[in-house]
Amino acid sequence: MRVVVALGGNAILRKGARGSAEEQRDTVRSACAQLTDLVETGHELILTHGNGPQVGRLLIQQRAAAHEVPAMPLDLLGAQTQGMLGVLLQQQLGNELRARGLERPVVTVVTQVLVDAHDPAFDAPDKPVGPHYTETELEFLTATAAPAGELWTVGRAVFRKVEGGLWRRVVASPQPLDIMEAVAIRALVGAGVITVCAGGGGMPVALSGRALAGVEAVIDKDRTAALLTRLVEADALLVLTDVDAVRLGYGTPEERPIDELSPEDARKLLADGEFPAGSMGPKVSAAADVAARGAVAVISSLACAADALAGRAGTRFVAP
Amino acid sequence: MRVVVALGGNAILRKGARGSAEEQRDTVRSACAQLTDLVETGHELILTHGNGPQVGRLLIQQRAAAHEVPAMPLDLLGAQTQGMLGVLLQQQLGNELRARGLERPVVTVVTQVLVDAHDPAFDAPDKPVGPHYTETELEFLTATAAPAGELWTVGRAVFRKVEGGLWRRVVASPQPLDIMEAVAIRALVGAGVITVCAGGGGMPVALSGRALAGVEAVIDKDRTAALLTRLVEADALLVLTDVDAVRLGYGTPEERPIDELSPEDARKLLADGEFPAGSMGPKVSAAADVAARGAVAVISSLACAADALAGRAGTRFVAP
Repeated sequence: MRVVVALGGNAILRKGARGSAEEQRDTVRSACAQLTDLVETGHELILTHGNGPQVGRLLIQQRAAAHEVPAMPLDLLGAQTQGMLGVLLQQQLGNELRARGLERPVVTVVTQVLVDAHDPAFDAPDKPVGPHYTETELEFLTATAAPAGELWTVGRAVFRKVEGGLWRRVVASPQPLDIMEAVAIRALVGAGVITVCAGGGGMPVALSGRALAGVEAVIDKDRTAALLTRLVEADALLVLTDVDAVRLGYGTPEERPIDELSPEDARKLLADGEFPAGSMGPKVSAAADVAARGAVAVISSLACAADALAGRAGTRFVAP
Repeated sequence: MRVVVALGGNAILRKGARGSAEEQRDTVRSACAQLTDLVETGHELILTHGNGPQVGRLLIQQRAAAHEVPAMPLDLLGAQTQGMLGVLLQQQLGNELRARGLERPVVTVVTQVLVDAHDPAFDAPDKPVGPHYTETELEFLTATAAPAGELWTVGRAVFRKVEGGLWRRVVASPQPLDIMEAVAIRALVGAGVITVCAGGGGMPVALSGRALAGVEAVIDKDRTAALLTRLVEADALLVLTDVDAVRLGYGTPEERPIDELSPEDARKLLADGEFPAGSMGPKVSAAADVAARGAVAVISSLACAADALAGRAGTRFVAP
């Protein structure tokens, strides 16, 4: 099968870790051992991954050096993490494949994802990025006074009051419409190259006339993964996260894993607010979209990846 | 012709510029107008570029946030700049091509370049990277006392005393031996995709057993460009720099441009110390290598790129 694998953030940087290069490399290495099992089974992989913690760290570094070096916008920071996390994946997956006698090329394609500059998400930015600021600090940095409400707009940036009276920047999370490098990605996949792409949901770009320009936003990586599944004509999307399956009644005494879900039932549960917007919601939504178009989608954990593709683990989304 | 184009740092960030995202994008845009002329003439392009100023800025940011966020090693910073500069090039070149009705895909492949862990360059690191440190600052950061000599070794890092009693980190500049993503790059080039790769000379990796691991070093981008020319079986290498041609007696009353040079004559002039090691030397050396293998190499400026490929400008290296 041709499979798009969407790796959760935990596959690169475990929660609570400091995030040194060695930690990230070792975590990626162990993820790549699981991925190599999939290659060994005969699957053709296209990989995508999250980048939230890494972009957050770049934003902290930019803040610390703001008096010395111009800060880069969020879209270019995303491209930086695509380079760094991409090379970790291609290096460690290449090593693991070679160790098992599987000589398969692995590359990373830096990916731009088209969004609509008029996407309604831009009217209500809600995705938090980067460090927390105290009110005093943000007053000093922005040379403006703290507003009475929950939102603090400075130029193009919007900050939202979060827990503990701190502030955090929020950006829009628009819908991905197209992958600008799809032709090249298809050429690579067709040539038998394992391709890492659209890291962090891809770098958001919008059309200004006929020209593309970067946009400061964050595209949900699972939504982009669903689009990628369609554009590379994959047979399956495998969303790997912290839990082995989607659960109903999560955190309640009635909690139970779901084995199979139709796109219709998934959408009903999403509409009922069964899955949280910030975590399982976008994954279920992406999986339902893929299934509605006739491909298979499975949500499971890295440890269960091979079983999930074989139908022995995870939550499977299939059109009836 | 299939042409590898090696863009000098000035094609992305002009000397003396602060280096904001807008400045870099605008400089890249104007470089891409020249590159589009080459595509319009019918040439097939593979692009590579420098990354020195950008890595320097990341090192400054890492220093400023060292108490908050773990610093990444030089190899991963190089990968970050490949992502960021690659996307600027693919975006702006894509825009310019589209504006002229040339629909050609452009992508960036994050590139690892193999070096020998025992390359003699590692015994005498001499390539300065990152910010300048005062003696007091470096004593504080490294918790060691300043040595009597010119070199200050702290763990894996070596600092060298430079002008003004300041210190700067120096790293090795080993020979590039192979491009790990060559198969994928060839597949892309064969599919008509304009490919940006090996930015900053590529991310240096060395073998440890059968596994690749990143190495803190800087590979000369023109040397890697020469290797790339061979691996993609290009007809020509075009090295674009600040001057329209290589000059003999540079800075003397006898200064004059060179129209054509054989690999043998180039090597003689290099051995005589005619070209400075830090600037024109590696370009002439890379061009001579390419010419000695039967391809054409030209050194010229961005403004003269099309003329240089047509034999009307620049210094041309051809085997007799």
